Amino acid sequence: MTIESMNEFADTLLRERDEARRAGQEWWHAVVPLPASTGEIAALIDHTSLKADTVPDQIRVLCREAKEHRFASVCVNSRFVPLCVHELEGSGVPVAAVVGFPLGASSTTVKVCEAEDALRNGARELDLVIPVGLLKAGLIDEVFIDIAGVVEVARRHRAIVKVIIEACYLTDREKIAACLLSKGAGADFVKTSTGFGPRGATPDDVALMRKAVGPSMGVKAAGGIRTKGVLLTMVRHGANRIGASASVQIVGGSTSK
Amino acid sequence: MTIESMNEFADTLLRERDEARRAGQEWWHAVVPLPASTGEIAALIDHTSLKADTVPDQIRVLCREAKEHRFASVCVNSRFVPLCVHELEGSGVPVAAVVGFPLGASSTTVKVCEAEDALRNGARELDLVIPVGLLKAGLIDEVFIDIAGVVEVARRHRAIVKVIIEACYLTDREKIAACLLSKGAGADFVKTSTGFGPRGATPDDVALMRKAVGPSMGVKAAGGIRTKGVLLTMVRHGANRIGASASVQIVGGSTSK
Repeated sequence: MTIESMNEFADTLLRERDEARRAGQEWWHAVVPLPASTGEIAALIDHTSLKADTVPDQIRVLCREAKEHRFASVCVNSRFVPLCVHELEGSGVPVAAVVGFPLGASSTTVKVCEAEDALRNGARELDLVIPVGLLKAGLIDEVFIDIAGVVEVARRHRAIVKVIIEACYLTDREKIAACLLSKGAGADFVKTSTGFGPRGATPDDVALMRKAVGPSMGVKAAGGIRTKGVLLTMVRHGANRIGASASVQIVGGSTSK
Repeated sequence: MTIESMNEFADTLLRERDEARRAGQEWWHAVVPLPASTGEIAALIDHTSLKADTVPDQIRVLCREAKEHRFASVCVNSRFVPLCVHELEGSGVPVAAVVGFPLGASSTTVKVCEAEDALRNGARELDLVIPVGLLKAGLIDEVFIDIAGVVEVARRHRAIVKVIIEACYLTDREKIAACLLSKGAGADFVKTSTGFGPRGATPDDVALMRKAVGPSMGVKAAGGIRTKGVLLTMVRHGANRIGASASVQIVGGSTSK
């Protein structure tokens, strides 16, 4: 993959989008049916708790809620992977661990080590943050190596990798490049945001990312999704996984937190 | 160290502080002379760049400024340690790398790996974030092991460790506990904040941390320090190292960023 070929792809994609906008047409498309039942909504959500001051008891509640509502996974910092694996034993709900989170600025060596640690402890999914500054500087080989390094470890453990591109810092061209690099490196999902940047997921970003990766790869929308309405908008624009902390509220249950 | 002995120490310390406050007396004290010259101020500052979207060219500028003004160190994410070591070669300005930053919620295994990686790449100082949630849950053994694990690696490389307690999330008692655990684990500094939490350093926190660790250990104030006046207030309250991104502005130079 060269910068030139990525730029050419981006040119075409952005031209199509702008033409559709001018014509007042919907350019985006969903890849999964709009969830109708509470259970279908829950099955899309990574139930998430990533704050610095989260205590183990809150993680236990997170796991209990995930079992009760059958969320897609729980998503936590690597420190809490063993606790979640223990709490979720036999439930079928997988544990997702974040890697290089939330700045994406640790070295590839460190990210690989973090991935290994989480997977050895029983995580089945990894949410990896790209080195945003390197992408912005056009160092696409280094970004590719970073993602591919973590994907390789994940493959060995039959785990999936979601690549957080932290779209709030990127131009549209950079978002497309990040998607193409993630796809090229063999990742399973691209994900909009950490939830720790200046803004979270937007429908426009989800649509652009879906168009960039095509229909077969995953797109996860995360950051600021607190209502069923916003969740459905993200799905309509192409997301097939949602990151949320307000998950219980979204599925209409009462939260025990 | 037991919770009981830490609580007893905290009781005494907080009582002394409250009595001093009621009497309108200054309870805090500086451990270094107030810096008078620009050079003396610069020598206290870790010149810092930790944002997710920082590009390599900004890191090069950071290093150039650090050489020019003789800052205490440059403080960066581990991804940029090799670049900084290269840029600062022969200058005598050391490179500080953050570990478990900014959430402190990666596992001890990962933090040790991150410390090893930074030190092998030439970092001489580590700024480590404690597992805040574990401290708040009273799991002081796990917090101690986390700090001691990184200190052990640092000792082998003759590097120093600053322990970020992220005071904004802690009660006064928890701040004191974090200081005592850091001191007990052999760390060199306690540090107020990551700069990514809801607030940065306060003079009150610096004073409390100084009293908790005594005169011989380091106290670094960081987060939101953008003027010479605020820097001097922190030193007056007991800080002997300052983390800042606006360092050039603080020493009164024109920034080349």
